[in-house]
Amino acid sequence: MLSVVKRFLIGRPLKSSELGEQKLNKTKALAILSSDALSSVAYGPEQILLVLMTIGTIAFWYSIPIAVGVLILLLALILSYRQIIFAYPRGGGAYVVSKENLGENAGLIAGGSLLVDYILTVAVSVSAGTDAITSAIPSLHDHNVLIASVLVILITILNLRGITESASILAYPVYLFVLALFILIGVGLFNIITGNVSPDLHAPLGTPVAGITLFLLLRAFASGSSALTGVEAISNAIPNFKYPSAKNAAKTLAIMGSLLAVLLVGIVVLAYYYGISPKVEETVISQIASETFGRNYMYYFIQGTTALILVLAANTGYSAFPLLAFNLSKDKYIPSMFKMRGDRLGYSNGIITLGITSILLIIVFQGQTEQLIPLYAVGVFIPFTLSQTGMLVKWIREKPKGWIVKLSINFVGALISFTVMMIFFITKFGQVWAVLIFLPLLVFGFHKVKRHYMAVGEQLSISSCEPPLAIEGNVIIVPVAGITYVVEHSLNYAKSLNPEQILAVYVAFDKEDEKAFEEKWKKWQPDIRLVTLYSHYRSLIQPLSKFISKVENKAIESNYQVTVLIPQFIPKKGWHNILHNQSSLLIREILLHRRDVVITTVPYRFKK
Amino acid sequence: MLSVVKRFLIGRPLKSSELGEQKLNKTKALAILSSDALSSVAYGPEQILLVLMTIGTIAFWYSIPIAVGVLILLLALILSYRQIIFAYPRGGGAYVVSKENLGENAGLIAGGSLLVDYILTVAVSVSAGTDAITSAIPSLHDHNVLIASVLVILITILNLRGITESASILAYPVYLFVLALFILIGVGLFNIITGNVSPDLHAPLGTPVAGITLFLLLRAFASGSSALTGVEAISNAIPNFKYPSAKNAAKTLAIMGSLLAVLLVGIVVLAYYYGISPKVEETVISQIASETFGRNYMYYFIQGTTALILVLAANTGYSAFPLLAFNLSKDKYIPSMFKMRGDRLGYSNGIITLGITSILLIIVFQGQTEQLIPLYAVGVFIPFTLSQTGMLVKWIREKPKGWIVKLSINFVGALISFTVMMIFFITKFGQVWAVLIFLPLLVFGFHKVKRHYMAVGEQLSISSCEPPLAIEGNVIIVPVAGITYVVEHSLNYAKSLNPEQILAVYVAFDKEDEKAFEEKWKKWQPDIRLVTLYSHYRSLIQPLSKFISKVENKAIESNYQVTVLIPQFIPKKGWHNILHNQSSLLIREILLHRRDVVITTVPYRFKK
Repeated sequence: MLSVVKRFLIGRPLKSSELGEQKLNKTKALAILSSDALSSVAYGPEQILLVLMTIGTIAFWYSIPIAVGVLILLLALILSYRQIIFAYPRGGGAYVVSKENLGENAGLIAGGSLLVDYILTVAVSVSAGTDAITSAIPSLHDHNVLIASVLVILITILNLRGITESASILAYPVYLFVLALFILIGVGLFNIITGNVSPDLHAPLGTPVAGITLFLLLRAFASGSSALTGVEAISNAIPNFKYPSAKNAAKTLAIMGSLLAVLLVGIVVLAYYYGISPKVEETVISQIASETFGRNYMYYFIQGTTALILVLAANTGYSAFPLLAFNLSKDKYIPSMFKMRGDRLGYSNGIITLGITSILLIIVFQGQTEQLIPLYAVGVFIPFTLSQTGMLVKWIREKPKGWIVKLSINFVGALISFTVMMIFFITKFGQVWAVLIFLPLLVFGFHKVKRHYMAVGEQLSISSCEPPLAIEGNVIIVPVAGITYVVEHSLNYAKSLNPEQILAVYVAFDKEDEKAFEEKWKKWQPDIRLVTLYSHYRSLIQPLSKFISKVENKAIESNYQVTVLIPQFIPKKGWHNILHNQSSLLIREILLHRRDVVITTVPYRFKK
Repeated sequence: MLSVVKRFLIGRPLKSSELGEQKLNKTKALAILSSDALSSVAYGPEQILLVLMTIGTIAFWYSIPIAVGVLILLLALILSYRQIIFAYPRGGGAYVVSKENLGENAGLIAGGSLLVDYILTVAVSVSAGTDAITSAIPSLHDHNVLIASVLVILITILNLRGITESASILAYPVYLFVLALFILIGVGLFNIITGNVSPDLHAPLGTPVAGITLFLLLRAFASGSSALTGVEAISNAIPNFKYPSAKNAAKTLAIMGSLLAVLLVGIVVLAYYYGISPKVEETVISQIASETFGRNYMYYFIQGTTALILVLAANTGYSAFPLLAFNLSKDKYIPSMFKMRGDRLGYSNGIITLGITSILLIIVFQGQTEQLIPLYAVGVFIPFTLSQTGMLVKWIREKPKGWIVKLSINFVGALISFTVMMIFFITKFGQVWAVLIFLPLLVFGFHKVKRHYMAVGEQLSISSCEPPLAIEGNVIIVPVAGITYVVEHSLNYAKSLNPEQILAVYVAFDKEDEKAFEEKWKKWQPDIRLVTLYSHYRSLIQPLSKFISKVENKAIESNYQVTVLIPQFIPKKGWHNILHNQSSLLIREILLHRRDVVITTVPYRFKK
């Protein structure tokens, strides 16, 4: 049953040899890896205006120079990440670059903040998309958390089906969104150029503004930079690209950068010319669209694709998180389950973990995840800074041909990223302080996991241990609950193993029963020794465990191994399990953990 | 850790021989077995008035003849149950009486409806008590469900500590409540007799009322009868009484009946004389108390003890449910776990089940359990009717000395109970129809469980089966994951059992790995045969299971038993478990259920 549902949702399992067919071409890769970055256009310009508005609408012209600053940062990041792609064509992005050039801890900080960041991406973008949906259909508003959770589950299933399949489905909305914004910007600029927009709507560039401070401008710049989150995703996911992976990834990155630049500048310019103020009840994009087209079908087309891409931005997290987790797991910093490919060749444990944790975030924050945006932005600029710095160190160390140019590019990238990060810490400390707590904790956890794996590896390796003690003989203990067919079967099995000794053990809850059983046993199995234990407290396990420990101590003296034989009922139907106490399971668990005995389960199948 | 918490909450375990000390004397028994019945006084009269109010306050005088009717019913029930106590001194009440005299299905209907009823008792009374508390402290009102759940948990823990201990704690509130109501009724009657209450407040008895119908009066009578729920509890719990149990139980029943009669009549009379109308925001008891005393300390004393007894009414369910479950379980109609005595000699599985199910009810109904009251009342009158009818049949069959009198008593009891039950069905069908669905389902379930136990018993008994096949030899399969200390240990153990054959199995995920491993193995363990399986779909279990089935088929031919040896890591700390895939557990479960193999778990303890 369960497996039928699984097949229906996820599809047939794929052979390991089909891996090559699961690679992405550039069109599909752009769709699934850029949705996060492109969707930022829907809120980035608004974030800039929100900060400027604290001074007044007269300050809005500053959005133009700020946008230019963001563009420079974008250019630096794209060029830097291009170099990373070619230098580390096997993916891993900031984690690998930082680890190799700046040391283990820098790598773990980068990796840890990215891991958390992808979870935040999913939670934040799905919540934003849900808000867009429920703004359109207010009757759904009470069910925000439920809708967001269902959306996350859908995206998770889509990703469990495999990358190419999700890419095919997701490509349409991404390209439709780009198309919609291109039309919007094109028509908008045409209106401006042909003088259809009144010049009174905006203060001219350079208008002096009273009360403007550097702090405020930096804050606006940092807010606008949050539109650049997601730029690193491609460098993490190079192994998902078709051959030649690195080249294809670099081209895709360039295309994404150009699209992002055009859309970002377009929206900022339109907002400035239209003199648009951010409003609580209507987004900036929505205002621009209704200024440009009125509330006709084009308006709804733009709104619809925007809502869609906000939800799909989550998908970038799904592409990058599992690969990053794979890399961390390969280096033994997180559980090894993240290394395994699932039925459809994706790293399904990473996909499922991402889904579950982001649903938890959505539930904890009751869908109000906007508060997480600054946290999420700072969590991106930490790895940005670390990876660029790592590249700097690499160039200085290796000095390849043309290294001065490369160095300069990464230097600019590192400098701007670091500055933006510091601006976030200084201007929004109240919202980002949590990073300073959970990042060290995370890094500590990584080390702890690694230490455990190393210790285990040592204990398991044959070279470092003495050979295990030889086993000179076996003592088999058979707990019996009555004179039944099951006991007979277990005793037969015990006999077939030719142990040195078989001990049947019976736990009695009252004295009369104890005697009666001993007598019956003598008649039934006279050649097998029966030990009866009286249990004062009606517990099976205590007297049994005590007895076994006694036998064990004796057995050790002559290098005998103690084995406990436990019959287990396998009922025909699952619900029958509750009709049998299944104390066997409990006994097994407790003995395995407390005593040094081997536990043998002899199944007994009910036929009815 | 866990066991320390358990000891703290529940107390040290008791020896089976201490059972006698856990019996109840009459004072304590009255306290814990009558709280349900006595607490009904807090809402029974109100229920009568609520029905009469649909005609008008002029109809309130009918509450007096209706109360007389309820009293007659009470008398009949008390006398009937007295006879049941002596006839069935080992407890079981309606279930045992109906089963023995009217047949299995009648017994199961009575037992089933009582089981459900005790769950309803707990949910309804705790919710009512919580309402009383949050009416007093409105700031807690949003946390009704949480408070009610915590109260249920507290009562559950108290009962897990044992009957005598809970009786000692619960006796105070019950007797305080009785004392409080006696004072209230005494002072109230004194006021009436001394003429301090204006005779204009109420219409005189016999005032003609327009629009009164038999249907309405019957409905009011049925509503008032809901105050009689809980009367049967003593007859279910006779084994909890000190010797002579039956005699003590009968006396306790008589005392309870008298108290209930006095309190019920007292409240009805006072309400009538004071001309009190039921209000949404204030209970009838509260109105009577503030009429009598004003809002002074006596008023709060009465309100406080009333809230307390409403919560404690739940405790009656805790005394009766586990004993009834024990009886059903002894007859194999419900899982055998309900037969076991816990650490403190109570039937702890019954107690815990009752706690969990009533919390579920409270959560599902969000604490608004008043809707369940009619369901709960009808669920009581079904077993009332069945047990009285059962007694009728018994007297007719056995004809003991004075059987005519006994017959008449039970006949009256049966007749009234049946009438009340029918009135419930006719006048409140919309609220009680659910009984007609879940009772048959429950009875069906009982039969199904019994059928399973009978089938199992047959399959286990040695007399009815052929002796199990002799085992001529053993084949041991050891799945190996690498060349490690753990594998070496497992192989040593396998060798010590001297099987006919040992097969090491390795599942490879790629072809190169497969070859490399085979070569390493040849050097390491040349004398143990290695089988390598290539897994196309990266699954361990599928190729393994397939291989084992092949070995199994061959083994059957020569009566060999197949054993699979699975190493299991026992990490030093619990959280380490998530760092190891523990596929061993999964493999074990799947093989046990799908293949006819013995599974041997060889534990390997990590030292670090």
